[in-house]
Amino acid sequence: MVKIAILGATGYTALELMKLLLRHPHAEITALTSREETAPVNIVHPSLTGRLSLRLENLPAEEIAKRADCVFSCLPHTATAAIAPALLDRGLKVIDFGADYRLDSADVFKKWYGVDHPDADRLGKVPYGLPELFRSKIIGASLVANPGCYPTSAILPLAPLLKNDFVEADDIIIDSKSGVSGAGRKPSMKTVYPECNEAISAYGVGTHRHTPEISQILQTAGGKEVKIIFTPHLTPMDRGILSVSYSKIKKEGLTQEMILDTLRNFYKDEPFVQIVDALPTTKDVIHTNRCHITSRIVGGRILMISVIDNLIKGASGAAVQNFNILFGFPETTALL
Amino acid sequence: MVKIAILGATGYTALELMKLLLRHPHAEITALTSREETAPVNIVHPSLTGRLSLRLENLPAEEIAKRADCVFSCLPHTATAAIAPALLDRGLKVIDFGADYRLDSADVFKKWYGVDHPDADRLGKVPYGLPELFRSKIIGASLVANPGCYPTSAILPLAPLLKNDFVEADDIIIDSKSGVSGAGRKPSMKTVYPECNEAISAYGVGTHRHTPEISQILQTAGGKEVKIIFTPHLTPMDRGILSVSYSKIKKEGLTQEMILDTLRNFYKDEPFVQIVDALPTTKDVIHTNRCHITSRIVGGRILMISVIDNLIKGASGAAVQNFNILFGFPETTALL
Amino acid sequence: MVKIAILGATGYTALELMKLLLRHPHAEITALTSREETAPVNIVHPSLTGRLSLRLENLPAEEIAKRADCVFSCLPHTATAAIAPALLDRGLKVIDFGADYRLDSADVFKKWYGVDHPDADRLGKVPYGLPELFRSKIIGASLVANPGCYPTSAILPLAPLLKNDFVEADDIIIDSKSGVSGAGRKPSMKTVYPECNEAISAYGVGTHRHTPEISQILQTAGGKEVKIIFTPHLTPMDRGILSVSYSKIKKEGLTQEMILDTLRNFYKDEPFVQIVDALPTTKDVIHTNRCHITSRIVGGRILMISVIDNLIKGASGAAVQNFNILFGFPETTALL
Amino acid sequence: MVKIAILGATGYTALELMKLLLRHPHAEITALTSREETAPVNIVHPSLTGRLSLRLENLPAEEIAKRADCVFSCLPHTATAAIAPALLDRGLKVIDFGADYRLDSADVFKKWYGVDHPDADRLGKVPYGLPELFRSKIIGASLVANPGCYPTSAILPLAPLLKNDFVEADDIIIDSKSGVSGAGRKPSMKTVYPECNEAISAYGVGTHRHTPEISQILQTAGGKEVKIIFTPHLTPMDRGILSVSYSKIKKEGLTQEMILDTLRNFYKDEPFVQIVDALPTTKDVIHTNRCHITSRIVGGRILMISVIDNLIKGASGAAVQNFNILFGFPETTALL
Repeated sequence: MVKIAILGATGYTALELMKLLLRHPHAEITALTSREETAPVNIVHPSLTGRLSLRLENLPAEEIAKRADCVFSCLPHTATAAIAPALLDRGLKVIDFGADYRLDSADVFKKWYGVDHPDADRLGKVPYGLPELFRSKIIGASLVANPGCYPTSAILPLAPLLKNDFVEADDIIIDSKSGVSGAGRKPSMKTVYPECNEAISAYGVGTHRHTPEISQILQTAGGKEVKIIFTPHLTPMDRGILSVSYSKIKKEGLTQEMILDTLRNFYKDEPFVQIVDALPTTKDVIHTNRCHITSRIVGGRILMISVIDNLIKGASGAAVQNFNILFGFPETTALL
Repeated sequence: MVKIAILGATGYTALELMKLLLRHPHAEITALTSREETAPVNIVHPSLTGRLSLRLENLPAEEIAKRADCVFSCLPHTATAAIAPALLDRGLKVIDFGADYRLDSADVFKKWYGVDHPDADRLGKVPYGLPELFRSKIIGASLVANPGCYPTSAILPLAPLLKNDFVEADDIIIDSKSGVSGAGRKPSMKTVYPECNEAISAYGVGTHRHTPEISQILQTAGGKEVKIIFTPHLTPMDRGILSVSYSKIKKEGLTQEMILDTLRNFYKDEPFVQIVDALPTTKDVIHTNRCHITSRIVGGRILMISVIDNLIKGASGAAVQNFNILFGFPETTALL
Repeated sequence: MVKIAILGATGYTALELMKLLLRHPHAEITALTSREETAPVNIVHPSLTGRLSLRLENLPAEEIAKRADCVFSCLPHTATAAIAPALLDRGLKVIDFGADYRLDSADVFKKWYGVDHPDADRLGKVPYGLPELFRSKIIGASLVANPGCYPTSAILPLAPLLKNDFVEADDIIIDSKSGVSGAGRKPSMKTVYPECNEAISAYGVGTHRHTPEISQILQTAGGKEVKIIFTPHLTPMDRGILSVSYSKIKKEGLTQEMILDTLRNFYKDEPFVQIVDALPTTKDVIHTNRCHITSRIVGGRILMISVIDNLIKGASGAAVQNFNILFGFPETTALL
Repeated sequence: MVKIAILGATGYTALELMKLLLRHPHAEITALTSREETAPVNIVHPSLTGRLSLRLENLPAEEIAKRADCVFSCLPHTATAAIAPALLDRGLKVIDFGADYRLDSADVFKKWYGVDHPDADRLGKVPYGLPELFRSKIIGASLVANPGCYPTSAILPLAPLLKNDFVEADDIIIDSKSGVSGAGRKPSMKTVYPECNEAISAYGVGTHRHTPEISQILQTAGGKEVKIIFTPHLTPMDRGILSVSYSKIKKEGLTQEMILDTLRNFYKDEPFVQIVDALPTTKDVIHTNRCHITSRIVGGRILMISVIDNLIKGASGAAVQNFNILFGFPETTALL
């Protein structure tokens, strides 16, 4: 039994993670931290009543190390990097839900996050936790940077196109739509029900922090510089991301069927990626760890259309997938 | 042109009021107050862009009196009663959206609101602004207590039954369902989108402050003591209230058609109350000042089923209706 | 491995059932029937892509008997009773999602469903599949009448009150609110998105077919005649039922805490029933097989407030729970 | 008083039109047609109870001509073109909500709509009813082609860019998101509540019929061939369209402020178009005839972001605007 601590357990990704881990035959949740709450977890998350009877606690690294073998951190950016070294030093494995270890460059981090990185030396050495692309690097790691939700939805369909040189790398537009749980659980004027119900809006246009993450990973995947325009939208639903990308065809004579076949082949051994013919809806995948992808050619561009659950494949499910890899369990454990 | 000041202009009822008044040929909005905001109103309410170009201001009573003939107060409870006397002394008319002048008794007020009433002497002398029942008292008044949203939805269908002695007055159950805008615009954990989307819950069971208001007004209407059980629910929609009441039949031989006829006759001259045959949905009346009512007899009880828009007939529309009465305009002005 | 056939596999309860059974270590889905569709199941239910690769087929009883040990029937009323005898004769076990075997009386069936019962001799001998109340009767049965969604939500909180003689049995009001999936998947004007979004309405007032089912089962539980008024509502959400019942207190001196303790004791060994202190929301239990219940005393009445997922505890989860009992698996298998 | 007939009065655009016209001081609705319904209009549209007391009728052109001066046609494509000539011959004015007279070419019509145009000679001579661009052509017309909802949302922000040669005309991507009312009121599997609630999906990718309409009108506006990629999405909300377009900058040195200033100047006399600084949400404009537009420059492309209400500025409000122009009323009558 692997003992698990979850840092920052009051939010939606932590809740989803707990629900998944409660189904895991080899994981036991032993500590839940919060800087503000000390209530039993079922007071903060009533859906856990009768399922988990821990309290939230404000715990230092030493105490966490005593109680857990593996830490999932749902802390805000820089908070994980502030505590991760102490946990790693004590031999724990750490899966970070945040952005602290996703970018390779401390400069890029500072540019987009506005602060100095607290653990800059580790940047570039931490595997990006998208097993479909980086499984071999995750195996044996002690720290994994769990991907952002938008990046997962955008990278899975685009990486094979770039690897196969099907599209121009410097003219990719990604238009993504996310459910409101992506904005977190903390009350704000933006997420009050009557503000975002019956409403759709673009936000973070040109400034969303997932932009450099998507570029960097696609660049790694494709081997050449990638330029993207990324526009996220707040959509009136709890969960789910739909990403539509528009890339300029580079390879002549490419057909829709060739693209779909290439993707089918690329992901043929992946249990969580399905290449589909019909246009998918987010509802096809919410509450699962799956990604459905299809493609269309329109007006000289390749449209890739993909759907995931932002809280599962875009966060907690991917984290459990990484956990399974780190500890040698079958990768689909607790995820089917 | 009647000059209008709106106190507490940042919320949803104020927004709805402004939209209605912008259609009123004899009203001009001249002042908007807020204790916190000083921005142009279209920054706080982007839907007013190009429609109203006032700023929010923190104004004392003297200044309001200089700029306005009539004040609509959307302030929280006790705040209106703290400023109303000064406005009335200066000759303004005041329509209070809050509960300050709805109850007749300072003791009842203290019991349910937990504080002493700042202007207790006026209690019992202020007309309750439900024109369908109290029009004659509103005419000529200088201060009107605009009804609560749940009370309007419950009182309109029940008052005729009590006046006609159709039902037992001491055994009335009211089960009401409201859209989330009824909870106001201020962010809170209860109204964050992913908390109340895809969810319905009862709240304030046995403790909601509209309980004594409904009892008192039904008592006034029916002439005998009324006992109610009132259960409100938070429903995943922006606006609308559906109230279903269950009353014990008192009058023998009563049929559904007799009840509907009695109501049709009772409200025959009312432009905003419709007695309908089919079961109504809140969607039939949202974005209008209308109330649709029907009735069924089931298992020895009369069920009254009514729908209103909580922000219009339940708040701002009723306020404009009262405004029209106070200033002698046709009652439906700006409300059709 | 128990081989499973699902009859009427195009709807929402069948989809939910398939998702649950795919997690069951001892169940294998081997046949899916439909009278209209012959497509692969993932065309009809895209969320099953890569998870189940059967086609829908129009199969006679003999063929079903060859392929399956256990049949879950999601067919409309009378259709299960038309095929069940042939399946039972061939030694299969049958779990009926419909109403065919829930009522004890063919006359009551005819009164509420408007048709003669095709298998009337069996009525009164089939266990009602609510394990929390009738587990001993389900064990060893070959046919189980899976409960209706509203009845489950209403019976679980009320049965202990009636058994303990806490409330008057002849004056119970049940006001229930359900998500739209309860209305099925077939397109109709009532369930078109813009008709039921942003809208709540009562329907089937005094006429809903779950009325006699609730009465009969509560009567069985409490041992005396029960009279209910039942009002269901269509609520703008996918799934979830909230039921609030209002019963007159019979036992003097009863307190809220005594009621909660009684229920806690009554359900102390039940893995899927939780007695909670705070008012629950449907969101606490959707996507689970759980029922959360609380109680309040208001104005001389006991209010019982309960929430379930209409598709799981109200249908497919309960069916799997019954399946586990019928075949001797731990009752929570595939349901946690 | 202009007498109005509405053809195809059972749908959502007709309902919205009736609500607008009921506020119009110079319009009287005198006939409502339907091929299927003959009920009073308030049975089909309960929200009109007490507001309009006509019945739906199946009326031939001669009868319509006797009762009306102006016809608003909400009929499906080709149905308006089948009856319009008879109405025009009798001196009526006709405003077509459908696509019959929007395209200039019968060949393009046949390509996208799959049928021959029943009144092809008129194509190219009917003004496109977007007053902000074609007001002078609408004045004095007897037939107006009311624009499609997506085209209005896309053309208003893009036309000024093309007229000013700010962007490349052959590389424009338009990603639009619409509420479900845009799919009409007829029940279908696509629009059943639980299919489209909590779900977003792209549809009609590369094939949506508004594609040639947008291209043609932008070409007319900009004077050069326009190539667009247009992707519509079904969004879980009743109404509202958000369109985000991505165009390649042509003019060097262009700044965001220059673009916004150009648009402000372009639309400075238009009562229904607002150029805003902040990113708009559909909620800013639903239930109004307004369009809010902003712009951002990202990665060498101009993003135009616009919002409208698909049923008002995208259909019925625009129709009333055209009606006001045709009959010489102030253009904002009944629309503020």
